[in-house]
Amino acid sequence: MKPIKIGIAGLGNVGEEVAYQLIKGFRVQKNLFQIELVAVSAKSKNKKRKIDLNHFKFFENPIDMVSDNKIDVIVELIGGDEGVAKDLCFSALKNNKAVITANKALIAKYGKELAEIAEERNLFFSFEASVAGGIPILKLIREGLIVNEITKLTGILNGTANYILSEMEKEQKSFDIVLKEAQKKGFAEADPSFDVDGIDAAHKTIILSALAYGKMPNVNNLTIKGIRDITLNDISYCNQLGYKIKLLGNSLLHKNKNGKDELSCSVEPWLISKNLGLSNVAGVLNAVQIESSLAGPVMITGAGAGGEPTASAVLADIVDYANETKLFSFGRNSNDILNNYNTIPYTNKFRYYLRLNVVDKSGVLADVTSIFKDNGLSIESFIQKSNQEDKTAELVIITHEAEGFVLNDSLSKISILDGVITKPVCLSIYS
Amino acid sequence: MKPIKIGIAGLGNVGEEVAYQLIKGFRVQKNLFQIELVAVSAKSKNKKRKIDLNHFKFFENPIDMVSDNKIDVIVELIGGDEGVAKDLCFSALKNNKAVITANKALIAKYGKELAEIAEERNLFFSFEASVAGGIPILKLIREGLIVNEITKLTGILNGTANYILSEMEKEQKSFDIVLKEAQKKGFAEADPSFDVDGIDAAHKTIILSALAYGKMPNVNNLTIKGIRDITLNDISYCNQLGYKIKLLGNSLLHKNKNGKDELSCSVEPWLISKNLGLSNVAGVLNAVQIESSLAGPVMITGAGAGGEPTASAVLADIVDYANETKLFSFGRNSNDILNNYNTIPYTNKFRYYLRLNVVDKSGVLADVTSIFKDNGLSIESFIQKSNQEDKTAELVIITHEAEGFVLNDSLSKISILDGVITKPVCLSIYS
Repeated sequence: MKPIKIGIAGLGNVGEEVAYQLIKGFRVQKNLFQIELVAVSAKSKNKKRKIDLNHFKFFENPIDMVSDNKIDVIVELIGGDEGVAKDLCFSALKNNKAVITANKALIAKYGKELAEIAEERNLFFSFEASVAGGIPILKLIREGLIVNEITKLTGILNGTANYILSEMEKEQKSFDIVLKEAQKKGFAEADPSFDVDGIDAAHKTIILSALAYGKMPNVNNLTIKGIRDITLNDISYCNQLGYKIKLLGNSLLHKNKNGKDELSCSVEPWLISKNLGLSNVAGVLNAVQIESSLAGPVMITGAGAGGEPTASAVLADIVDYANETKLFSFGRNSNDILNNYNTIPYTNKFRYYLRLNVVDKSGVLADVTSIFKDNGLSIESFIQKSNQEDKTAELVIITHEAEGFVLNDSLSKISILDGVITKPVCLSIYS
Repeated sequence: MKPIKIGIAGLGNVGEEVAYQLIKGFRVQKNLFQIELVAVSAKSKNKKRKIDLNHFKFFENPIDMVSDNKIDVIVELIGGDEGVAKDLCFSALKNNKAVITANKALIAKYGKELAEIAEERNLFFSFEASVAGGIPILKLIREGLIVNEITKLTGILNGTANYILSEMEKEQKSFDIVLKEAQKKGFAEADPSFDVDGIDAAHKTIILSALAYGKMPNVNNLTIKGIRDITLNDISYCNQLGYKIKLLGNSLLHKNKNGKDELSCSVEPWLISKNLGLSNVAGVLNAVQIESSLAGPVMITGAGAGGEPTASAVLADIVDYANETKLFSFGRNSNDILNNYNTIPYTNKFRYYLRLNVVDKSGVLADVTSIFKDNGLSIESFIQKSNQEDKTAELVIITHEAEGFVLNDSLSKISILDGVITKPVCLSIYS
C-alpha cells in the first residue's frame, strides 16, 4: 500500500486538529490506509500547539508546497476567497496535487473553475468541511441522495447567528449584549459581520445550491439580510405567537409557466413554527432540510463549526481520497454547473410577521389597516403593546398568505405614514 | 463506458420502483453512467405493474440469475433471513456478481459472512436500503463519520410502530383500534408482529451496531420489547408529564473498569422529553441519532419506508457500484466485525416511568412507597387516577435516577403485592 502524503496549509483550530488526528491516527487510517502528515505551513511556526511541528517540513510560504513532489494532497485551511488561499488551491491543482479545503468563500466564488481543473486532470478535489462542519451534508446530497431531484434546501448554516438568536431568547438579552458576550466566549469573531449579516450563510447556501440543483448563484445576486434588526421584543412576540426566529439559507427550484427552471434563493431571518423540527435547532447547531423527489424530506442536524467537527469533515475527505473514490466535486460534471445563475424573488405566497413602531395616537392603526384593505392583505393575528412613557406603541401583525409584491407594496405605503416612526420590520413565515 | 447490467429479484413496492427509475432514467445515470436493467424475477409475471416486463429477461427462479453472464449486479428485494433471498445473495457473490439488497433480516444474521465473501472476491456488496429507507444512514456512518469513534446510536427505526404511537396520541384511540386502521391503510402488515414487537427495529439496530462499533449482537441476545402494552392512558400521562413514548433501537458502547468494551443494546419503548428532537419525529418517519468523538452529536430524519424512499437507497448503491467505489460493507474489514457479540444490560442510571394498576383501597400506596424506600428509590412525580366504577386506580410514578437492578428488584416486589392487579408497566426515560 502506497502511503498518502498530506500537506496542511493553515494551522488554526481546524488545521491543528486535522494534524493532531493524522499524527494520533484513527481507526481506518491504521487498518486500511496509510495516511501521513509530511508538511505544514502556518503564519507562526512557534505558536504553542498540541502538535510538535518539528516532525514535518515547514513552509513559510504555503504556495511552495505545490512544487514539493513528496506531497500528494494539499489541505487548504487558510480561508478567504482571494489571496493566498485562492492562489494555493489553483496552483496545487495545476501542479497535479489533490486539494481538500474548508474554504466556503473560495468555493462559493471559484468552486466551478477549480472543479473544472480537477476534472480535466482527474484530480481529487473536495470541500465537505466548507458547509455545516461536522454534518456530512455534501456527501449526503452528492452520493446518498444522488438519484433524487432536489426542489428545496433550507439550512441553519451559521452557528454564531443561531447562537445569538437562541441566547437572546434564553437569557432575555438584546442583540448587542449577546453579541458582546459571544465575542468574549469565542463564539463570534471580533468583526462579526460575516456571521450576523448573513454573508457566511450565503456562501454555504450557494455551495448547497450547486450540489442540489447544479445552479450556482452569485453572492451579489442573493437577497441577504442579517439578524441585527431583530429585537428581544420580536423574539418575545414570536414566542407568544408560536414561532422561533431563525436565520435561514433557503433555496427553492421551480418550473415557470414555460417549463423553465427558476431558482429563488435567500439568506434572511424567518419565523418558524414551533411544530417544525427546524425550530428546535438551538445554539451553535446547524441543520439542513432537503425536499427530494424519491427519498422525500430529509433533515440532518449537528455541529456546524469548531475544530473537531470541521476536522472530522476534512479527514473524511482525506479518507475518500485514500480510498480512491471517484468524485465529482459537485455531484455532476462541473461543466454542467451553471455559474452566476440568476435568482428571482419567491413566487410562493407566504404569511408575514410585521412589527411597526408607531406614535400611540388614534388613527394610526386605522391608516395601517386601510392600506392592508386596499391591497387585499388580511390580518391573522394582532398584538399592540403601548409604551406609556414615550407615547409610542409597537404593532405586531401576522398576515394571512400573500404574494411578496403585495406585501412590499403595503410596506412601502406604511413606511411613509405620518405616525410610523421607524422602518417596519418584516419577516416571512416559513412553510 | 461499459454499461452496467442489473438484475432485480423481487418486484414488490421497492423492486417495481427501482425498475421503473432505471427504465425512466435519472440525472446521473444519463450523464455519467450507463446503467441498464436487463433481467427481473418475481412471483407473478403477469401482475399489473407500471413497468412492462417484456423488455427484460424474466426468471421464474431468481437463483438462475446468478449464472447469467449478462448480469453484473443482483439486486435482492425478496426479503427474509432464510430461503430464496439467502441462497440468492450467497450464490450471487460466489458467482462473482455484485450484490445490493434491502434485506435487514438477512444482513442482521448473515451480513458478516456475506461481506467476507465479497471482500475475498473484491466484489461490491451494499445494503443502504436495509436501514431507515430514504435516510442514507449507512453511508453517513461508513463514510461521512468514518474517522469518528461512535459511542451511542439511537434510532426510531420502525415506521409502523412510530405511526401507531403517534396516531394513538393524535386520535386518542387504543393500540388495537389504531393497528386495525393502520392495516387497512397499508401502514401495517396483516401480521404486524415484526413491526410492533420490535423485531424489525432489532435487525436494523444490529446492522447499525456493526457499522458504528464493528460489533454485531445476535438478535436472540437483545432486550426486545414491543409496543403492545402501551395504553392510551400511558400516552396521556406521559404527555402530561412532558414526554412522548417512542420505540427506540438503542445501543451504547462503554469501557468497563478494565478498559474493555461493553455494549448495551435494546429495542424498547422509551419516554423522550418533548425538549429533545427525537420526540418530534412523528408518524412513519424514521430518525437516527449518533454520538461521535469528533463530529459530536448528529441526527438525521427522513422517510423510513415506502417504495420511493427505499428505491432511492437501492439506486444510490447502484450508482456507487457504477462509480467503482471501493466499499467496505461495514466500514471496516469484515474480519474485524465481531459476530454474535455479547450485550449487557445498561449500566447507566436512568429515570423510570411506572404504571401500576391497583385496587383503590388504603394501604396499597403505602406498600408501594415502602418498597421504594427500602430500595433507596425516590419518586420525582406521581399521578393517581381512580376509577370509581370498578374501585381500581392507576398509579403513575416517575422515579429519580436509579440503576436498572434497583428498579427491577423493586418491580418484582411490587408485582406480588396484594393490591396490585396487573403486571406493572415500566419504561425508561431517555437521556
